[in-house]
Amino acid sequence: MPLKRAKIRLFIEADLSAGASVRLAGLQYHYLTRVMRLETGSTVGMFNGRDGEWRARLAETGKNSCFLTVETHLAPQMVEEGPWLIFAPLKKGPTDFLVEKAVELGVSRLVPIQTRFTASVRINKRRLRANAIEAAEQCGRLTVPPIADVVRMERFISAWPAERPLLVLDETGNGRPLADIFDVNYEANLKPPAVMCGPEGGFATDELDALGNLPFATRVGLGPRILRAESAALSALACWQIMRGDGWQAPAAKAARR
Amino acid sequence: MPLKRAKIRLFIEADLSAGASVRLAGLQYHYLTRVMRLETGSTVGMFNGRDGEWRARLAETGKNSCFLTVETHLAPQMVEEGPWLIFAPLKKGPTDFLVEKAVELGVSRLVPIQTRFTASVRINKRRLRANAIEAAEQCGRLTVPPIADVVRMERFISAWPAERPLLVLDETGNGRPLADIFDVNYEANLKPPAVMCGPEGGFATDELDALGNLPFATRVGLGPRILRAESAALSALACWQIMRGDGWQAPAAKAARR
Repeated sequence: MPLKRAKIRLFIEADLSAGASVRLAGLQYHYLTRVMRLETGSTVGMFNGRDGEWRARLAETGKNSCFLTVETHLAPQMVEEGPWLIFAPLKKGPTDFLVEKAVELGVSRLVPIQTRFTASVRINKRRLRANAIEAAEQCGRLTVPPIADVVRMERFISAWPAERPLLVLDETGNGRPLADIFDVNYEANLKPPAVMCGPEGGFATDELDALGNLPFATRVGLGPRILRAESAALSALACWQIMRGDGWQAPAAKAARR
Repeated sequence: MPLKRAKIRLFIEADLSAGASVRLAGLQYHYLTRVMRLETGSTVGMFNGRDGEWRARLAETGKNSCFLTVETHLAPQMVEEGPWLIFAPLKKGPTDFLVEKAVELGVSRLVPIQTRFTASVRINKRRLRANAIEAAEQCGRLTVPPIADVVRMERFISAWPAERPLLVLDETGNGRPLADIFDVNYEANLKPPAVMCGPEGGFATDELDALGNLPFATRVGLGPRILRAESAALSALACWQIMRGDGWQAPAAKAARR
């Protein structure tokens, strides 16, 4: 039986090993001592994306920072080979939501792209990174997926890793049903794909045509309703994980929801 | 080829038939004349959940209301036999989000339930109904699914329609992988299910046990990560539609995104 996961999980940058002392300040200090009112001697989970998950004990609380002592190795680091999400930035609310849910759904890389009809090519990377960290802490992941800088779609496509299938979400009615692709009879060893969604206004027709002609890409449809960009992306990601990804595994143990 | 859907779609309560005159006031009047700045002679789509979709033309704009003339029948009324969503009310943001996305995903009935750990048993039905209408207008549906009053879970379960499978989202690790259920080899004629998700704190252990013992219910798991309640519900709904629902169909024509 795996060791029980801690109720509070924190992502930190520092190295983790038995006996190490970790100093927390700022928001993490505030969260532990003011929001959760953790007392000396209480334990939390910690991960950094490299050293697996550890149990750490609150040793000392000061005025602006606190110290924890790393104790027990709870889980070894896993390579989390999830799908990628390639997305045109949306408005603030939908973008926040898309990043949070994509992390929960096990996405291993987030790439914001600029397409013809992308209204805004700016993202607040700091805020999105904070959302991604909170989602990873909450859902029990051992990594926080990187969020790239905004890149022109053509440029990102030009350096594509051939082994990764690209699923382009196509609401024009010319996409192949996603169930076709996820059917095990279609390709038993389908690798984790990259899911690409366009901006609110959709892809331009020639963008879709060009994408559809790429040897590693498939234009896919999700049914008769026109989904918002973020809904379409999350539907495809959720369906991948459930049918072909890690949906067969069970959680190690229940983590607390914030 | 189906007739092209209108760019602006409005859900109204009145009957729709050729030649009928429809008066709009309040928010719909404001939206058409102020936000979209529609001029006399322009057309919009209209549906009421009973008479299919119609094209209507703006005939007259007054100070507080406008009149449209119903002209062409664009699509016959369809029975939209989607899955149900049974959910414990969450905080405002996640609840709004859950309702909006569930409507986009074709849910035919929304039932808020009270479980042991449900923090809030109040919902703002008026706001949720407005969200549901906007989502239906945007995604091209011909119905707006009803949102029930909050009901105790046991009470709702006691009058269950035997032909509808109930999928209880179970994050304890004791659920069956959803891919098992959605595999066509498991049951070729699986009817649209009801997806049930608990509150932020999850179901109580005895609630889960009791649900699991119901002849029409299956406890299902969604993989190794602990998803937030709304993420879990939408993942299951999206996967149902894509793999076993209407994911094989294509949109009639592209509706405008707001």
